[in-house]
Amino acid sequence: MKKTTKVPKATITRLSIYYRQLELLEFDGYRMVSSEKLAWLCQVNPAQVRKDLGYFGEFGVRGVGYDVIDLQGQIKKILAVNRDWNLAVTGIGNLGSAFMERQNLSWRGFKCVAAFDNDPRKIGQTTPSGLKIKDIKDLDWVVDELDIEIGVIATPPSAAQGVADLFVDSRVNAILNFSPTRIQVPDCCMVENIDFTVRLDILTYKLNHEIGI
Amino acid sequence: MKKTTKVPKATITRLSIYYRQLELLEFDGYRMVSSEKLAWLCQVNPAQVRKDLGYFGEFGVRGVGYDVIDLQGQIKKILAVNRDWNLAVTGIGNLGSAFMERQNLSWRGFKCVAAFDNDPRKIGQTTPSGLKIKDIKDLDWVVDELDIEIGVIATPPSAAQGVADLFVDSRVNAILNFSPTRIQVPDCCMVENIDFTVRLDILTYKLNHEIGI
Repeated sequence: MKKTTKVPKATITRLSIYYRQLELLEFDGYRMVSSEKLAWLCQVNPAQVRKDLGYFGEFGVRGVGYDVIDLQGQIKKILAVNRDWNLAVTGIGNLGSAFMERQNLSWRGFKCVAAFDNDPRKIGQTTPSGLKIKDIKDLDWVVDELDIEIGVIATPPSAAQGVADLFVDSRVNAILNFSPTRIQVPDCCMVENIDFTVRLDILTYKLNHEIGI
Repeated sequence: MKKTTKVPKATITRLSIYYRQLELLEFDGYRMVSSEKLAWLCQVNPAQVRKDLGYFGEFGVRGVGYDVIDLQGQIKKILAVNRDWNLAVTGIGNLGSAFMERQNLSWRGFKCVAAFDNDPRKIGQTTPSGLKIKDIKDLDWVVDELDIEIGVIATPPSAAQGVADLFVDSRVNAILNFSPTRIQVPDCCMVENIDFTVRLDILTYKLNHEIGI
């Protein structure tokens, strides 16, 4: 794989989407796929597919296309999902529970190995996936013990920054934040926000400007 | 406002993020904000802020910056969130329930006015927000009756396409899809997918390439 410097986040996002489509193509029995077909399936243009992959090397065969299984393996390596990652989920309400229920996460190697809350009525309870809900106060040593590398924040907004601080203090360098508030972390820590309203804003923009409701 | 043609989706996404930061700035008592400060708060560069807004007209005052309240109003108009939108949520499990619980949605004008499921044990029950869960079979006439413009799919993957088809048949032209599967819809309908694994892939990529775990 080519040594990479700074690759656009949009490229990484699309690689993840290409990967998912390649899984489906394999499931449907395809051995090879053209950049045109992969692009069409992912709703981008073929040049984009070639450019995105081009950041990381030469994968396709000109005039033939990509080997569906080989390219999956390459993208898994690029995305570093060719191994398992341990996640801790904080805030075991409906959202945290829904996240832990996502079967495709563990299929993809994202293992929810710890669940935390600060509600005494929840602490000690067992989740449907069989995790005993732990006291958020114990986050630090549990992170060490279970080798947790990604923290998930599904708490109310008011608790999000405090939990983010706990993750940072525990040397968790990646946070998936579902709470509709921006959290501040040092540069050593990366945050991805999943903000429902941003996606709804995109839909309303398109309804208004592209369909003209 | 300038007549717009095709604006990059990334610009619309950032406008939504600028809007949220402007709300926070107003809350903190700021009257004006420079593109530099707004950019810093949103983790983009100032030229990007000016370019994004430039698609829609001239908003800032050179050397002074943007009026925090005025720019919020302008972006609300651009995103078409200067009025309420009625949403229907399908699949009232943890995820659908978590979505309906999001108070910031209704603050932002996204009103969950109908909840649907196909589980006889859930149909007829009342959600914490006071909605009586309806039979998914009734989607079509409920959409008409309640003037629903955005459909939310929080069902298991196996049910997602069927629900999407129901929304399309009911002339709902915008779908927010939480199920980890691509759904096929005609061009008249727009879909935004919220796929947790894509965001996790971005984090693992960064952990691997930028921090070097």
